[in-house]
Amino acid sequence: MKAVVFDGKLHVDDVAAPQRRPGEALIKVSRAGICNTDLEITRGYVQGFKGILGHEFIGIVEAADDKAMIGQRVTTEINCACGKCEFCKQGLGRHCVNRTVLGIVNRDGAFAEYVTVPMENIVEIPSEIADDEALFIEPLAAALEILDQVDISRGKSVLLLGDGKLALLIALVLQTCGSNLLVVGKHVEKLRLLKNLDIDTLLLGDFNKTGFDVVIEATGNPTAFALGLECVKPRGVFVLKSTYGQAFSFNPASVVVNEITMIGSRCGLFYKAIEFILDYNPPLRQFISAQFPLREALRAFEYSQRPETLKVALLMDNT
Amino acid sequence: MKAVVFDGKLHVDDVAAPQRRPGEALIKVSRAGICNTDLEITRGYVQGFKGILGHEFIGIVEAADDKAMIGQRVTTEINCACGKCEFCKQGLGRHCVNRTVLGIVNRDGAFAEYVTVPMENIVEIPSEIADDEALFIEPLAAALEILDQVDISRGKSVLLLGDGKLALLIALVLQTCGSNLLVVGKHVEKLRLLKNLDIDTLLLGDFNKTGFDVVIEATGNPTAFALGLECVKPRGVFVLKSTYGQAFSFNPASVVVNEITMIGSRCGLFYKAIEFILDYNPPLRQFISAQFPLREALRAFEYSQRPETLKVALLMDNT
Repeated sequence: MKAVVFDGKLHVDDVAAPQRRPGEALIKVSRAGICNTDLEITRGYVQGFKGILGHEFIGIVEAADDKAMIGQRVTTEINCACGKCEFCKQGLGRHCVNRTVLGIVNRDGAFAEYVTVPMENIVEIPSEIADDEALFIEPLAAALEILDQVDISRGKSVLLLGDGKLALLIALVLQTCGSNLLVVGKHVEKLRLLKNLDIDTLLLGDFNKTGFDVVIEATGNPTAFALGLECVKPRGVFVLKSTYGQAFSFNPASVVVNEITMIGSRCGLFYKAIEFILDYNPPLRQFISAQFPLREALRAFEYSQRPETLKVALLMDNT
Repeated sequence: MKAVVFDGKLHVDDVAAPQRRPGEALIKVSRAGICNTDLEITRGYVQGFKGILGHEFIGIVEAADDKAMIGQRVTTEINCACGKCEFCKQGLGRHCVNRTVLGIVNRDGAFAEYVTVPMENIVEIPSEIADDEALFIEPLAAALEILDQVDISRGKSVLLLGDGKLALLIALVLQTCGSNLLVVGKHVEKLRLLKNLDIDTLLLGDFNKTGFDVVIEATGNPTAFALGLECVKPRGVFVLKSTYGQAFSFNPASVVVNEITMIGSRCGLFYKAIEFILDYNPPLRQFISAQFPLREALRAFEYSQRPETLKVALLMDNT
C-alpha cells in the first residue's frame, strides 16, 4: 500500500499493508488531516518517531473480530493504552504510561491506505456528520479538553493567542461558553473567519491589554509564552496548548507572586467532539484550505506549512 | 529609632520614627524574623526595594484611632491593599494591584523599633500563643496557602522539595492532611527535625522516585524546578513556593503532554495560621536557630545565610 513515511526524511512509499491482530480493527482510510504535530515531527522537533505519520483520519472498518463493525465509518482515539496501569484504571488512557500513539509514538499512523488500531479506540461517526467535518473530531476533542480542565463560565474574560488550525477550533469551542473572548493572531484572513462568526479578534500589533481571567496559548510559538503569562491576571489561569520545539529562558517568579495556575492541555475525548458538532454545527468546512491525494503528500506537507494555510486533507481514494 | 536599612547596602541606622497617619496603627516592634525574601533583597535578587526591611514580626500597638487597640499584642498582614480595586473587592487584597508590601514593596518594614501599618492589616495574637510562636504566623500562613489552592486530601502522594525555613513549616502543615508525604532535602540536621515528628524524609542524593500526585518546590534553588516537574505524575500538580533570583532554560512540552497543573503560591491568611497553631500546637520553637538584638542585625543576617540555620529572630527590646 502507499503510505507517508518519516524516517528522518519524509517520503511517500510502497509498504506492506498492516496485519490485523486479534482485538484490532483493520481500517481502510478514506481521508486524513495534517496537524502541526505532523509538521513538527518532520522538522525534527518531536524526537524519535519513525514510521507512517498521521493521527487525524476517518475510514471504513474492513476487518474486525466483531463482524457487525465491518463497513462502519469510524475514526479512532489516538492514544493506544495498556488498560492495566494506574491511569488506565482511572479512565485516563490518554495518560497511560505504556501507551503508543498513532503516528506519533511507536505506532504507525493513518497517512496510508490502511491502518490497524485497537478496537477500544474505535469511535463510530454518526451519519449526520459529513466526512469533511469528521476529520476535525480529533483536534476538536483537543480543543474541548480545555473545558474539562478549566472553568470558563459566562462573563469570564478569555484571551486566546493564536489563529492556527487548533486555535480556530478553540475559538469555536470558547464561543459557546458565554465568556468574553478575544482572539489575537497574526493573519488577517484567518482572523476574518472568526470575525464573520461574531468573535472579537485583534492583530497582534494592535493588541495591548492585560488582566484576563484565562489566557490560552495556542500559537505554537515560544515567544507567545511570555506574552501570554503577562496577560493573565493574578490568580488567573494560563492554559498551554502548544508544544514548542525549543526551550527558552524563564523565571517563574511572576507565577508565584501572582499565584497563577498554568495548566497543560493535550488530547480530549472524542465523544465530546461528536456531541459538539451535533449540537452546534460549527462551520468546520471553512477551515479546510486544500485537499491532496495521498501520492501528493509531500506537496500537501509543503502547502500545509504556508502561513495562510489552515487544515490540509489527504484523500486516500484518489491515490 | 534604630532600624535595619537596605539602600543597595545593608546597615543598621538611626532614622526618624515613622509618623502614624489616620487609619494606621503605630506599633512598637518586640521581635521579628528574618525570611529568605529579606536575604534575597540584600543579594539584589528582589529588585528595587530601598528602605527598612522586615515583614515577619510581632509588637504592641502604641497608638491607633481606636484607643481600645492600644497595648494589644499584634502582628500584621504584610500586603497593604487599596481596598478599591477589583481584587480588593473580591477579598484578595494580597493581590491588590496598588498594594505596598511591608519591607518588600514601597513600604518601610519592621526591622526597627517602630512601624506603622494600616489598621485593617492588624491581627491580634491570642494569649495562648507565645511570642516565639507568633513570629511564625506570617510564614505559616504562606505554608497554609497551599491548602487553599490545591486538594491535598488523605492518601495523595506528596513530595516536598526543600528543608529550609518555609519548607519545614509546609511539612508541618501537610502532615495534618493525611497525605503520604515525603520531604527531600540536603541537610541532615534539618531533616532530623521532621523525622522526629514522624515525617518521612530523604537526602537528595538518596532520592529516586517519580509519579507523585502533588510536588511542592520550596528549595529556593532553580535547579529543583526541573527535578520537581519530573516527579509529578500526569495530570498531577506542581506547586511553586520559591521565587528564584535567576531565570533558567525551560520547555513546557512535558507540562502540556502530561497535562500538569503548575500553580504559584505566595502569602496566606493569618487567621488560618493562628487557628493552626491553636489546633495543632506545632513545635515552632524548634525552628528558631538564634536570636540577636536589633543592633546586631548584620551579624544576624550573616548567620541566617549559613546552610544549617533555620529561623533567626531579631529582638528589639535589647537594642
